[in-house]
Order: sequence, then C-alpha cells, then structure tokens
Amino acid sequence: MADRISNETELIQTYLAPLTRGLPGAFGLRDDAALIVPDVDSDLVVTCDPIIASVHFLPSDRPSCIAWKALAVNVSDLAAKGAVPRAYILALAFPDAPERAWMADFARGLEMAQSRFGCVLAGGDTDRTPGPLSISVTAFGSVPKGRFVPRHGAKPGDHVFVTGTIGDSALGLMLHTNRADFVGALSQDDRDFLVGRYLRPEPRVALVATLRACASAALDISDGLVKDLRRLTGEYGLRVPFDALPLSSPARRAVADSPSLAATVVSGGDDYEILCSVPPERVADFLSGAATAGVALTRLGILQSPGETNVVGDDGSAIEPPTAGFDHFNRRGGSAVA
Amino acid sequence: MADRISNETELIQTYLAPLTRGLPGAFGLRDDAALIVPDVDSDLVVTCDPIIASVHFLPSDRPSCIAWKALAVNVSDLAAKGAVPRAYILALAFPDAPERAWMADFARGLEMAQSRFGCVLAGGDTDRTPGPLSISVTAFGSVPKGRFVPRHGAKPGDHVFVTGTIGDSALGLMLHTNRADFVGALSQDDRDFLVGRYLRPEPRVALVATLRACASAALDISDGLVKDLRRLTGEYGLRVPFDALPLSSPARRAVADSPSLAATVVSGGDDYEILCSVPPERVADFLSGAATAGVALTRLGILQSPGETNVVGDDGSAIEPPTAGFDHFNRRGGSAVA
Repeated sequence: MADRISNETELIQTYLAPLTRGLPGAFGLRDDAALIVPDVDSDLVVTCDPIIASVHFLPSDRPSCIAWKALAVNVSDLAAKGAVPRAYILALAFPDAPERAWMADFARGLEMAQSRFGCVLAGGDTDRTPGPLSISVTAFGSVPKGRFVPRHGAKPGDHVFVTGTIGDSALGLMLHTNRADFVGALSQDDRDFLVGRYLRPEPRVALVATLRACASAALDISDGLVKDLRRLTGEYGLRVPFDALPLSSPARRAVADSPSLAATVVSGGDDYEILCSVPPERVADFLSGAATAGVALTRLGILQSPGETNVVGDDGSAIEPPTAGFDHFNRRGGSAVA
Repeated sequence: MADRISNETELIQTYLAPLTRGLPGAFGLRDDAALIVPDVDSDLVVTCDPIIASVHFLPSDRPSCIAWKALAVNVSDLAAKGAVPRAYILALAFPDAPERAWMADFARGLEMAQSRFGCVLAGGDTDRTPGPLSISVTAFGSVPKGRFVPRHGAKPGDHVFVTGTIGDSALGLMLHTNRADFVGALSQDDRDFLVGRYLRPEPRVALVATLRACASAALDISDGLVKDLRRLTGEYGLRVPFDALPLSSPARRAVADSPSLAATVVSGGDDYEILCSVPPERVADFLSGAATAGVALTRLGILQSPGETNVVGDDGSAIEPPTAGFDHFNRRGGSAVA
C-alpha cells in the first residue's frame, strides 16, 4: 500500500511551505493570497505556462525533473524578456493523492530549480482532478522600468542571434519515448545528454542583463526554431543555412545518421534557448556581455528586406515539417510524448 | 458538424485579445509575457484558484457562467485582502477544440465579469488536455503599501462579521444537479435565486476600502462557513447560534422544510462572502462604510477567550458535517457536482 498524503494541509505545510523561505509575502502559504512588494523603479513581468502529464511530460518521469521543468519553462519566458526571476505561484491538480516519496522528490526538484533560477514560491492552490496531473506555474520577474524586451521590435540591420544549441530536446524526447531509430549512432553519453536536455532545460537567466542592454527584441524557443524565428523576424526575411545552426555534437551525430532529423531539429520545440535581434551598434557589447555571462551565441544572420524566414538545406530548399512548428493547441492531448 | 476553432492564433486573437483593452502591458496577447506596472505606493496581491469541469462546475454549464465564476472566485480572494482587482492571467486547457459559439459566450462572460470587477486580461496560455476543461486564473490586485488585510490577525475583543447570506450556493448546487429533496418547498423564483448564487457569485469588491480601513483580519468563504470561521478565529472561540446566521428567504424556506440542510448551509462552501474581524473602536466606521457600499453585514459575535468555534443548533450542539467542511483535496475529482 503506497504511503499517500491524505490531506491538503499536510501537502502544503510539509512539502510546499518550506519553499517560501525568504519571502514574507507568502505568509508561509497560510493566507489566501500572496503579497508581492515590487522592487523600486521596476516593472513586473508575468508569464504562465502550465505543463500537463502525457502532453508536456511523461507521468513516469522523475518528480524532481517534472518540477524543474514546470519552473524552467516559465523562467525561460522571463529571461527572454530581460526580467530577473523573483517569485512564482504554483497550482497543482492531482488525479490521485500523491505518494509521500513522490511529493518529496517533486519538492526537491522545485527547490533545486528555485535555487538555480533565483526565485521563491509565493502561493498557490492544490486540487484533485479527474484528469491528468497538471502543474500550472505563474512566474514573476523584475525588470527596470521601461526596459522590458519585447517580442516585436526587430529592425532591418539588426543581427539575429541564438543561444546554446538547437534540437537537443526534441531528439531527447524521441530517445526518452523509444521512438528514435538513430540510437545506434550514439554513445550512452550522447543519449544521456540529449534526454537530459529534454528533462532539465536550462533557461538562459545569465543573459538577462545583456539582453536588456543590447537586444531590440527577444523570445525563447519553445515551439521550434523556425516558428519562433518567424515570430522574431516578423515581416523581414532571414535565410539560415542548416549548417549554420548551433548543434551539439550528439545532435550532429544523430542528424548525420538520419538526415531527415533536420526537420525535427528546426521544429521540435522545447529548446528553451533565446532568439534575439541586436542593432549593429550594440553587437560588440552583446558579444562581450554574453561571453562574460558564459552563454554561447551563434549569429544566424542580419535582417534586411521584407521576405520569408526559412532554414534551408544544402539544396537551398526550406526545411520544414508539414505543420510549420509545434502547436500545443492543434495537437491532440497526449501526442507530444505518447 | 460543430463549428470549431481550429488554431490557437484564432482562439487568442478573436476571442481573448479584445479582453486586454486598456492594458498596454498585455501587448494584445502577442508577446510571451505581460508587463504589470505597479501603482505608485502600492503592493501587489496575487491569488490563483483554478476551476476544473466536473469538480468546480458542470461541463454543461453556460460558458458565460463558467467564465464569470473562474474570475469571480479569484476576485473574491483579492477583495478579502483589501485589494482592488487590476488584471488577471488566464490558462485554458481544452479537451477538444472549442466550438465558436461556446468560445464567444465564454469570452462574453469574461467581459461581463471584468467590467463588473474592474480588471483586465493581461496574458495567458492555451493548451489541449486529455483531461477535463480546466480554467486557471491568476488574479492581481492593488493594495496601498502595508495595508494588506491578513487572514490571521483577529484579537480578543474584535467583533466578527459576515457579509451577505450564507448557504445559498450550496443549496443552489443541489438544485442545479437535481439532488434537492426540498424542491417542493420553493417557488420557481426561489430556485432561480439559489441556482444563480451558485452560478454567478458576486465577490464583495465594494467592501474593499472599508475592510482595509477597519478589519484586523479577513478571508472569503469558499470552503464553508464553519471551516473558514475557524481559520479566522484561530485559537479564540466563537459560538454562533444557527438562528443568528444571515440566510436568504429561499434558504430559510429550504431549511424549514428540511432541517438537516442546516449542515449544508454551514459547510457547503462556495459562498464567496467575506468573514472579518473588526476591533471595537473601528466597528462604527465599519458599519457605516459597509452601509455606504451597500453591503449587508451580520455580526456573528465578539472574540473572547481561547476555545472552540462552532455554529450551534437550538439544543446547543454543534452543527457539522462529518468532514468539517469542504476540502478540494480530499474529495475525489467529480464528487462536488456529480
């Protein structure tokens, strides 16, 4: 018989309340609302990106990984806006009363993520649901007044950059769900790396100050590189050779083995890297800021005239899946990971 | 064949983006995050109370009522903290692509609720889910610095008040789900009133300024009068005769017909009235402030020595259901309305 948590007070006070340490406005999760005291001369950036079992993660994933991901995907949105993560609200809906061991590991994952990203639990809600486990985070970040980095704002002449490497997470998901026919081309370390990128994304919080100082526009890549690149470039065209994309060595080996994976790399989503545009006069500062922050950058091109934005193969044709990127809404629940 | 919304952009831009009018920081729902510019000399109050189909509402309920309720239950939390509602984030998870007519009525309900409560849509997220329709609102309110009304803070000598009437919603739910054996005692108007109180709760936003000026502690009644009254009174005892509770005429007729409904009235939950404690020297101001705001008040008693808090019947024994109030967490999904 599993050792399950039988009441909401135990769930909240034993596992969640310790995560509010350092934030008096959370009232130890004993009030009905949280109090956020805004930083002086700052605006508040808010984002909400829930994750649902069998849609955004596997119910069998390690609870600490699920917790990390729930927070990371939201922190990634904040980082792309130039906001420093501060606090978050957590709404949990459980199909069954959780086991104590599950909940302890889940709380451990939140604690690790909080400590890594620099934010604290401020409040939340727990419910039972006839549906799958659902974890809804609303995250708050702080940005100096007027310095929010918008999604729309790229101009002709701006240089377009992407952080880190692309496609690891989509390939990792295929491995994680045993749908990868490229397994033979990879070592165990390669496979662990790719699955790790899916399970434990690392939002680019280190780049926040540099983005604010230099970027004209930015967003994080959650719906696939091509789709999010088009959001950034807007009416301006950018033609990016696939060879120019930053791929990790494991991803490069997978694509060399199965060239059709190029489409997965550019459209698979869940990268949680940052795409941004930087005016030419700020490029030098941007590069040195990113180097200081230890964030790898790749320049994808320079925006010029209106036109289409594509990633192209050796033959010059656009690499694109039928649906032009990942759409959480069009997809039937469950198809992402099942 | 139902006329369904086939993509997320249409859903967001046609139905939801118009609800952001007046809030530049919502960026017309075209960015990844919202920008909240705090009022000068104010703190931000945040609350999150999701509602799930077959748990908190019936899937067959009118979409505009579902939308109203999703916002109202959160605004009720803000009001109890003395906060003026400002903005909210909306995360929707749909089991199927919604029909256009459904979504239009849902958006209409949000618009009516926004206009009534004085808040605006700031951002959100839409997903598909293998589970039931889930509507997660995170609501933001504004409170002058240091004037948040806490849940814990009632002191001996404080007078305890409740707004409006108690139990209507729990009785309305029984009628709404055809589980009421007291139907015969009520007119159609009575039934409509009670069901209306369940479907369209009216958070006590009008009382916000008076609460801030006068209350030592407050919370809204969502989990049943007895349970929430115990949260307010803490270690201090309060013994409230059932006869002293504010009941609407329809509720009074239902209880007269079926005396066992007294337990439903004090524990059924979903009242969304405010319970508060007021120090004796501020009682006169509190009463006149509430009268000016048009909010009916009932004094439940005066806190004295440590002890138990109960609602008691004519024979002096406590009226209480086995579970001592409604617990969203202990309850199996579905049992609230099915």
